Amino acid sequence: MAEQKKFVESITPRDKDFTQWYTDVCMQADLLAYSNLKGFMVIKPAGYAIWENIQKNLDARFKATGVTNVYMPLLIPENLMKKEGELVNGFAPEVAWVTAGGTEPLTERLCVRPTSETLFSDFFAQDVHSYRDLPRLYNQWCSVVRWEKETRPFLRSREFLWQEGHTIHETAEEAEARTQQMLNVYADFLAEELAIPTIKGQKTDKEKFAGAEATYTIEALMHDGRALQSGTSHYFGSKFAEAYGIQVTGRDNKLNYVYQTSWGMTTRVIGALIMVHGDDSGIVLPPHIAPTQVCIIPIQQKKEGVLETAAKIAASLSAYRVKVDDSERSPGFKFAAQEVSGIPLRIEIGPKDIAAGKAVIVRRDTREKIECAIGELPVRVGEELERMQREMLERATAHLAKHTFAAHNAEEFEEDFRETKGFVKAMWCGDRACEDKIKEMYGVTSRCIPFRQEEIAGTCVCCGKPAKKMVYWAKAY
Amino acid sequence: MAEQKKFVESITPRDKDFTQWYTDVCMQADLLAYSNLKGFMVIKPAGYAIWENIQKNLDARFKATGVTNVYMPLLIPENLMKKEGELVNGFAPEVAWVTAGGTEPLTERLCVRPTSETLFSDFFAQDVHSYRDLPRLYNQWCSVVRWEKETRPFLRSREFLWQEGHTIHETAEEAEARTQQMLNVYADFLAEELAIPTIKGQKTDKEKFAGAEATYTIEALMHDGRALQSGTSHYFGSKFAEAYGIQVTGRDNKLNYVYQTSWGMTTRVIGALIMVHGDDSGIVLPPHIAPTQVCIIPIQQKKEGVLETAAKIAASLSAYRVKVDDSERSPGFKFAAQEVSGIPLRIEIGPKDIAAGKAVIVRRDTREKIECAIGELPVRVGEELERMQREMLERATAHLAKHTFAAHNAEEFEEDFRETKGFVKAMWCGDRACEDKIKEMYGVTSRCIPFRQEEIAGTCVCCGKPAKKMVYWAKAY
Repeated sequence: MAEQKKFVESITPRDKDFTQWYTDVCMQADLLAYSNLKGFMVIKPAGYAIWENIQKNLDARFKATGVTNVYMPLLIPENLMKKEGELVNGFAPEVAWVTAGGTEPLTERLCVRPTSETLFSDFFAQDVHSYRDLPRLYNQWCSVVRWEKETRPFLRSREFLWQEGHTIHETAEEAEARTQQMLNVYADFLAEELAIPTIKGQKTDKEKFAGAEATYTIEALMHDGRALQSGTSHYFGSKFAEAYGIQVTGRDNKLNYVYQTSWGMTTRVIGALIMVHGDDSGIVLPPHIAPTQVCIIPIQQKKEGVLETAAKIAASLSAYRVKVDDSERSPGFKFAAQEVSGIPLRIEIGPKDIAAGKAVIVRRDTREKIECAIGELPVRVGEELERMQREMLERATAHLAKHTFAAHNAEEFEEDFRETKGFVKAMWCGDRACEDKIKEMYGVTSRCIPFRQEEIAGTCVCCGKPAKKMVYWAKAY
Repeated sequence: MAEQKKFVESITPRDKDFTQWYTDVCMQADLLAYSNLKGFMVIKPAGYAIWENIQKNLDARFKATGVTNVYMPLLIPENLMKKEGELVNGFAPEVAWVTAGGTEPLTERLCVRPTSETLFSDFFAQDVHSYRDLPRLYNQWCSVVRWEKETRPFLRSREFLWQEGHTIHETAEEAEARTQQMLNVYADFLAEELAIPTIKGQKTDKEKFAGAEATYTIEALMHDGRALQSGTSHYFGSKFAEAYGIQVTGRDNKLNYVYQTSWGMTTRVIGALIMVHGDDSGIVLPPHIAPTQVCIIPIQQKKEGVLETAAKIAASLSAYRVKVDDSERSPGFKFAAQEVSGIPLRIEIGPKDIAAGKAVIVRRDTREKIECAIGELPVRVGEELERMQREMLERATAHLAKHTFAAHNAEEFEEDFRETKGFVKAMWCGDRACEDKIKEMYGVTSRCIPFRQEEIAGTCVCCGKPAKKMVYWAKAY
């Protein structure tokens, strides 16, 4: 078992130093490598395969709602970027500027897209003429660049991969409904595929997207009790339409501005997967999203019939994503390799098992060992994958519930953030000043004003004035 | 039929002005829009859907050969780019430079990747240690930027989408074999999916990729007789390995440099699709790659049972990519819309057809009308799609053969390029001087030294000295 220890020893225990554990796990599971440019990462095959599965699943969900994919330019002329004041003020401090093309300086700076509202708006202005052309429901998969100061793999990097959806509509109601619809797509995707429960709600004015009238968010809770914003959906009203001249002839035969939305999800959710489900042996991937769902590990593989049986089992499991580890490494090494990379199930098969006509299934999350007749594996593996998927969501949901606290007053609020980690629900008067003060005092931010409001008290937890909304607060990534 | 004319009239006839025809067709088929930044295009849903199908099919072909996907940074530090002299000299005149991140100037310029050999090489140098780690077979899907002077939609743009494969190997033979293997993947893909025959061969030293020891290419012939380089595969030997220090401990227990390849295919092949198969009514998509394979157009759709029958037919064709055009527009308009966008088959279904229990299938390429009993549509549509796919390749192959000429001497060579358009096969002494002279005299370039050599003469078509190789020459995009 010396080799198995090697993996495990190189991972800092999760409860000792969560930050170091996270980095160790990313590296040991071979998800990425640092490039020689700060904040830019190389996503390695194991990491990229997770992203490919996320893309495939999300893309199908988008298309089921009528969205089609397009591609917009990578670079944005400065004057185009500047047309909408709030957006440019929000992003200007963190964009990368191209100033030369080939051997000649450019007459106008171009920024590497940090997000593409400006490009879509400029395009929409030419693309639609009549209310009959609406809605336009577009999405693109691409990378964006934001010159962040602090960077961490997947969670915050200067370049990241994402999708950005951009839609325009005839009415405010329709655009608002689309904003909510896409937030629900994100929440369903996280729950059903990533086994991550989230809180749905609206961002405060302070935390909303630059240029948005309203930003909706799904907030997930990591194992260490910190929150991660996992997907956002923005309602712009006609703000961009007015700045970029997106008008259509309406049913009233007059020129009307359109109503606009955008929504995005990024490679950051890979960080969420790791921090919600991972343990001291590595990452744990929910079966629905795992690039490999089952790893078959032959024991005493040189003995007659072992590799043949392993291959037959693999063939019988063709409905799942299966691999056989028939490398020259020891079973102990293979177990550790399968565990660190989070493959949901492993099947151990050796001469004794074969003689008894059975195999052993081991679940990655619980380590539960399940004996199973070889002929029953195709059915049993399917059942266990679904059971694991379900139980991972249940455990994450229980963790979220256990680490969500209600603070009825300032004392409880302080106590919650001094003694525990997680979400704290508390009433808020709606004033920016209280939001700022809470951040300053406790280092926590308002995560969202949840759609499911509760009246846990009548007054603001900060100033004691009459409360308007219940807010989720937390330390966040 | 006034509406139908509207589409057709806005397309310049192909044989009148091929360049204008190409632009008209791109626009009328709604494949793209110009952005307000020269050389950067917006790929619209109809264009991007073609790219998605290309990606899906090519990606599966790559994976079947053991390739996995990764993602490398968008930006390359200047010093990293400079390590391999030939590459930087080849690309320096046409890269975009980032000089500021956020509000501060950078201490070192970063270029937006024009290609990623340097990034992969830098990564490989850390990633492999022993010959046991080889081969590494990586690919990425991304966009690249090259500051071209002349730009044309899909064919030459300052930003384009592509895939770039990068592999490293223990031996020169293995790397050479991989270079050829991927060239064959490209050629097979073009023939089997895009119905485009190609000439496979090697680029001359003058035309090869900056930094490559050998560049292999597939060359296609457009309808107007000009060639289009449609995919390239490069063998680097150990040139990058030496510049970036990619070494492994070999079987001989010594440090050895690895052998490297790269290979790429771009959105340019969408241009090839248009220019090989399109006609005066619009684009014609080969069934295998068409986002919509069948468009069902109801005639007199307000009459009882018409839309219901159209929907039933669509349901019975669920094995194919089908849509029903039940919009309020006239059948004539719908026919023209289906034709301009190149949907392979349309099915016309009206009250008379329904009464007779049949429908009419119309092929996009030949306009052939096929009567078919409604119940037999599922089988017949499949057969017609395959027949059309096959015949499109046959026609393109015949066109290629008809426009390929053999020039046995200088007089014939001159005559061929004065009187006709297409590929001219001619013998070459191997000297750069003759290659330059031919380009200067006839405006044609050496497309490739084909793998299938013929000895059509004994002397160079330019200088009359003993010939070494037969070369394909053509005007090229």
